[in-house]
Amino acid sequence: MVVELISVGTELLLGNIVNTNMQFLSEKCAQAGVSVYYQVTVGDNPERMKETFQTALNRADIMLVTGGLGPTEDDLTKEICAQVMGLPLVEDAHTRARLEEFFQNNIYTEIPENNWKQALVPEGCQVLDNGNGMAPGLIIEKDGKTAILLPGPPNELYPLFTEQVLPYLASKQPEIICSQMVKICGYGESQVADKLADLIETQDNPTVAPYAKTGEVHVRVTAKAANEEEAKKMIKPLLKEIKNRFGMAIYSTKEEENLEDVVVRLLKKYELTVSTAESCTGGMLAARLVNVAGVSEVFREGFVTYSNKAKRKLLDVSKGTLKQYGAVSRQVAKEMASGCAFATDADVCVGITGIAGPDGGSEEKPVGLVYIGCCVKNKVSVEEYHFKGNREKIREQSVTKALDLLRRSILENYK
Amino acid sequence: MVVELISVGTELLLGNIVNTNMQFLSEKCAQAGVSVYYQVTVGDNPERMKETFQTALNRADIMLVTGGLGPTEDDLTKEICAQVMGLPLVEDAHTRARLEEFFQNNIYTEIPENNWKQALVPEGCQVLDNGNGMAPGLIIEKDGKTAILLPGPPNELYPLFTEQVLPYLASKQPEIICSQMVKICGYGESQVADKLADLIETQDNPTVAPYAKTGEVHVRVTAKAANEEEAKKMIKPLLKEIKNRFGMAIYSTKEEENLEDVVVRLLKKYELTVSTAESCTGGMLAARLVNVAGVSEVFREGFVTYSNKAKRKLLDVSKGTLKQYGAVSRQVAKEMASGCAFATDADVCVGITGIAGPDGGSEEKPVGLVYIGCCVKNKVSVEEYHFKGNREKIREQSVTKALDLLRRSILENYK
Repeated sequence: MVVELISVGTELLLGNIVNTNMQFLSEKCAQAGVSVYYQVTVGDNPERMKETFQTALNRADIMLVTGGLGPTEDDLTKEICAQVMGLPLVEDAHTRARLEEFFQNNIYTEIPENNWKQALVPEGCQVLDNGNGMAPGLIIEKDGKTAILLPGPPNELYPLFTEQVLPYLASKQPEIICSQMVKICGYGESQVADKLADLIETQDNPTVAPYAKTGEVHVRVTAKAANEEEAKKMIKPLLKEIKNRFGMAIYSTKEEENLEDVVVRLLKKYELTVSTAESCTGGMLAARLVNVAGVSEVFREGFVTYSNKAKRKLLDVSKGTLKQYGAVSRQVAKEMASGCAFATDADVCVGITGIAGPDGGSEEKPVGLVYIGCCVKNKVSVEEYHFKGNREKIREQSVTKALDLLRRSILENYK
Repeated sequence: MVVELISVGTELLLGNIVNTNMQFLSEKCAQAGVSVYYQVTVGDNPERMKETFQTALNRADIMLVTGGLGPTEDDLTKEICAQVMGLPLVEDAHTRARLEEFFQNNIYTEIPENNWKQALVPEGCQVLDNGNGMAPGLIIEKDGKTAILLPGPPNELYPLFTEQVLPYLASKQPEIICSQMVKICGYGESQVADKLADLIETQDNPTVAPYAKTGEVHVRVTAKAANEEEAKKMIKPLLKEIKNRFGMAIYSTKEEENLEDVVVRLLKKYELTVSTAESCTGGMLAARLVNVAGVSEVFREGFVTYSNKAKRKLLDVSKGTLKQYGAVSRQVAKEMASGCAFATDADVCVGITGIAGPDGGSEEKPVGLVYIGCCVKNKVSVEEYHFKGNREKIREQSVTKALDLLRRSILENYK
């Protein structure tokens, strides 16, 4: 079953707001096993709305429209939809009564006349009571096609969709969709695609698809089946195969778990504490760790040592090392990590030093050169990276690599 | 001139990510005086991409597509677009050279063969070098229609669009559009809209439009005119009026200047140094400051003191204060800021302590309660905030308010 999602509202076309409704509806539809082939946003313009609705009703089984159900002159979704589907608008006594009740409960001195238009519905449709606003949702079926019209404000849309539309969609579905996430760090998107080329190409159901994220790649395996159990059985061998090919580079197979969650989970599991000493990333690594609720068990303190003086004072990096090798060097990363361990007594410590640019690079030490040291059990290992991109991108990649280095160091030393 | 915006990516149709690109591009197009009638999102499916591209090229002057330019099998935007426009793909020597350089600088053991497809471009098109990724942007003109293809990742898309596509769009416009940004911190979106209601409603040219950002509101005044001088003359009285209404709450009127840029600019101007002591924000404030290139002149070190012990050890917050008032209190924020000043000798110091949630809140101290102290000239002022939203949102708002407090403290004490 195919649903086409349509948002109506000129404010979206002007970029005044981000269309979060689309993401919400798409995710829910995917979970319900309903395919979405197109998301379309159109302004409050009768001609373009008509064209959009006609196209959607032609190519999809269900057209789901949000927005344009309010009482103003601009709100035309219901009128245009009824016109396109060839249905007259009639007053719904139940909705009229709800509106009257609403106005009685909300001290209005006078009820704007145009509000009553919210009680008009396409003949024969199903009315979905809106608990958080005046415009009801509508399900309109005709000639094997369905239009679902819902209000745009998220606080009205979300409960209406979850409580009344999802059960309707499920009742129309023969198959369900199930998907499995695999999160990989340490390979580029094209490397992952290359290593999985055979699976990506040949697999139709389940499908295998890689998604690039900053410093990581997410691979999604998606199966359609009669029930969840069967879908999971179809996914299992593919998941095993992907695990074989990427091994330790897979940091999680959970949808909602990100890299810092895994690091904090491992730290808790092995009862370890962590501390950070950051130069070019300037606190971003600590901030990513603190993103995780409940991090206080494992993370107590961190240092941002942007100047050489701060590196010496807070981390006891030696003057000689700074002079001989420069602040961006393998040796300084090493001393930052071990100095951090000495200062904090944390079990695992990371030191990051690098050139984020745009200035400060040289032929010998170009912008993007970053050293990350990790101190575990009094041993420090240092990795050298060459990142591309602007200042922000270089810093973001540094943090992702530092988290991955933390993850691998914990597993290597404590597993 | 009408632009149709198209996003390509099955991950959008599955609801894996929110389509923030659409909002960015729509806002920029509106600002450039270009009309957007439709935003369409389509999956990585050749047939549906073809239909979408054909429709867009029929009904709009320019089709702007983001996503699907990567090296994987799924990335088909360029191929389908060339096919729809009837152009062969040819190798672009310049892009090939850039790819080779990229791989040389990034120690790859072998270059995946499919990467070279990123050097193929539709014959006769204009290639836009991508400073933050491998896939270049492309401008393809044929038979009075234009297709603009850009990579999907925001960190690649935004600079490419701003630096190379906007000037192209401007060159195609008969009238020029001139706009003036006013950045406001300290008022909510509805407060700003309320205070500017008369200007927003009555003004047709120039227009006045507010945009909500996390912790700030941006107001854009946009004029259409025959030339820049005339447009600026139209904007001037409105800008003056907005300045009158918001005064000190306006932190910048420059498009590219953000809050941390202003803070670093002021610190440099008055030859001041800054240091940070962060609890709930865990390094985010330091990281925002370090976002600014050249910050080393004014920022040398910062502390992430997540535990009470760290607050005591690094900032000398007194045990009694922590015990009597709790870690999230006006008194601890004050001692964090003054302790930071003592430890670092910086001229301006900020201390942040709060409850970011989801746990740790109580009736007396609910989630979202944040205290920010600012120490200047041995005097500490502390502000109390009650933020709404999830852990991340609360932390982001805290950092924005801390930067604004820094800005106002510097101006009040040194101007």
